[in-house]
Amino acid sequence: MLYLYSPDQQELYFRLLQEALPDREIACWPQEVDPEAVTHAAVWMPPAGFFRRFPNLQAVFVMGAGVDQMLGRDDIPEQVAIVRLTDAGMAKQMIEYCLYGVLHYQRYMDVYRQQQGAGQWLAQPTRLAGEVRVSVLGLGQLGAQVAQHLAGMGYRVTGWSRQPRAVGQVNCVHGDAALRALLPETDVLFSVLPATPETRHLLDAERLALLPKDSAIINAGRGSLIDEEALLAHLNRGHLRFVMLDVFAQEPLAADHPFWLHPRVMITPHVAADTVPEEAVSQIAANLRGLAAGEPVTGVVERCRGY
Amino acid sequence: MLYLYSPDQQELYFRLLQEALPDREIACWPQEVDPEAVTHAAVWMPPAGFFRRFPNLQAVFVMGAGVDQMLGRDDIPEQVAIVRLTDAGMAKQMIEYCLYGVLHYQRYMDVYRQQQGAGQWLAQPTRLAGEVRVSVLGLGQLGAQVAQHLAGMGYRVTGWSRQPRAVGQVNCVHGDAALRALLPETDVLFSVLPATPETRHLLDAERLALLPKDSAIINAGRGSLIDEEALLAHLNRGHLRFVMLDVFAQEPLAADHPFWLHPRVMITPHVAADTVPEEAVSQIAANLRGLAAGEPVTGVVERCRGY
Repeated sequence: MLYLYSPDQQELYFRLLQEALPDREIACWPQEVDPEAVTHAAVWMPPAGFFRRFPNLQAVFVMGAGVDQMLGRDDIPEQVAIVRLTDAGMAKQMIEYCLYGVLHYQRYMDVYRQQQGAGQWLAQPTRLAGEVRVSVLGLGQLGAQVAQHLAGMGYRVTGWSRQPRAVGQVNCVHGDAALRALLPETDVLFSVLPATPETRHLLDAERLALLPKDSAIINAGRGSLIDEEALLAHLNRGHLRFVMLDVFAQEPLAADHPFWLHPRVMITPHVAADTVPEEAVSQIAANLRGLAAGEPVTGVVERCRGY
Repeated sequence: MLYLYSPDQQELYFRLLQEALPDREIACWPQEVDPEAVTHAAVWMPPAGFFRRFPNLQAVFVMGAGVDQMLGRDDIPEQVAIVRLTDAGMAKQMIEYCLYGVLHYQRYMDVYRQQQGAGQWLAQPTRLAGEVRVSVLGLGQLGAQVAQHLAGMGYRVTGWSRQPRAVGQVNCVHGDAALRALLPETDVLFSVLPATPETRHLLDAERLALLPKDSAIINAGRGSLIDEEALLAHLNRGHLRFVMLDVFAQEPLAADHPFWLHPRVMITPHVAADTVPEEAVSQIAANLRGLAAGEPVTGVVERCRGY
């Protein structure tokens, strides 16, 4: 039996799962079921201890791309597979989000907004896509598609990841030394890196200082990537044109956080890429069948790696 | 002899033209030349009467896509061809400009900016590209490329022009009745229409009222398209989410114009698509050779049509 926990969109997901897996028994929270019959779970933000009552659990499908909240918990035994979504309609939205930030930078929309407030009619120099260097941190499904789309539009894209990755025709580099070499050559830094011990405060005061003056940062991965204190100090020294942040160390962002009113900070409330229910369910159904047939499936989390 | 008038970028264009047309004699303003030797001119905003002294002029190459300032004048005889640029690197920039406005709308960036000012963390509903209806007015080189790019990204694009046009797989309609039918089905209206008697105040109070509540307008064509008084009234009734204007009835926009401080107006100073000198010169050179060989060339202006 597949047990669904997604209080916000329970009815929609229940219907979609029934359509996608007509031969499977499906129940959904808070329905009472025989706990021993539950072999699979599809979940979004389940409460602590949620999985403890299911002794025969084989796999947990997380209805999102980030699994950091799932890895710290103690109610999913090691032998239970945790499977995350790897695209499920999110890549297109991530492309849109990144592209908006890149265009905001390239086309001086921040400058024109300021000029408008001052009643100033003044053209900024023309900057073609090929003159904008975009560095994409994180080259999983989402980062790879963002990098390829932007390269296709003519931007000078470099992809970076901790481990070596190949992404079509995109120039890719990896590892610590490459990141240090890349930052000074970056106009727009875009991250979809997951939250892991290795990515925590990857952008600290020292690495932020390597970015050129007047560059921009777009963070659509996880808030833990950036040392927010160091970022504020860096912004206040006038060393970045702007940052566009969708994720934060603490969410929702605290009401008194200085980001809210900072003129160089654009805030969106963790909306860069939302799961598209139809595509999420289609991926979960395919993965469930794949696991049952012993085939390789996408999105199985390696717990030691953290994603 | 080809005579160049482009005071702002004289040296650059002179060098590029010499490279592109090594077998042609080229002079540039304010150089004194034998007026009878001048057969062609490449110009940007030449003063009144500029052409009168060249009795043997055959063609004028305008270094831009819009030629409205060229058609009212009395110093270019009818038999002299006026040739405008039809892409010359502008289409890519037009795509960027339009895309920024469409993303601003689709991804609720105007709403998130307001929410940020109020310290409000609130996700707006997910809206996929396929749920956004973009109407592109004007299907010359620029409009056609914008329509195709947006359709390729999944937006629901309809192209509109006065006369019938076909643009790849994009749904195209034409004429007055079709525009009236299209406006109520439009989320984002994008225009690259030229300034002609027919397009003057095409968006008047009556047609603006046909747009759905909470739609948006992006004007990157000519300011005469919109009745600005009617637009202000419409905006003030709260019937549009925002307008993004690159062109105005009067440019530069008057210092006391109410657009400057209007919360639903985004102003850029006629920068949506700048001529790329290398591509402009390559097009001018090709057209000059084409005209000399009696071949059909792109961008020859039909004066009665106005573009």
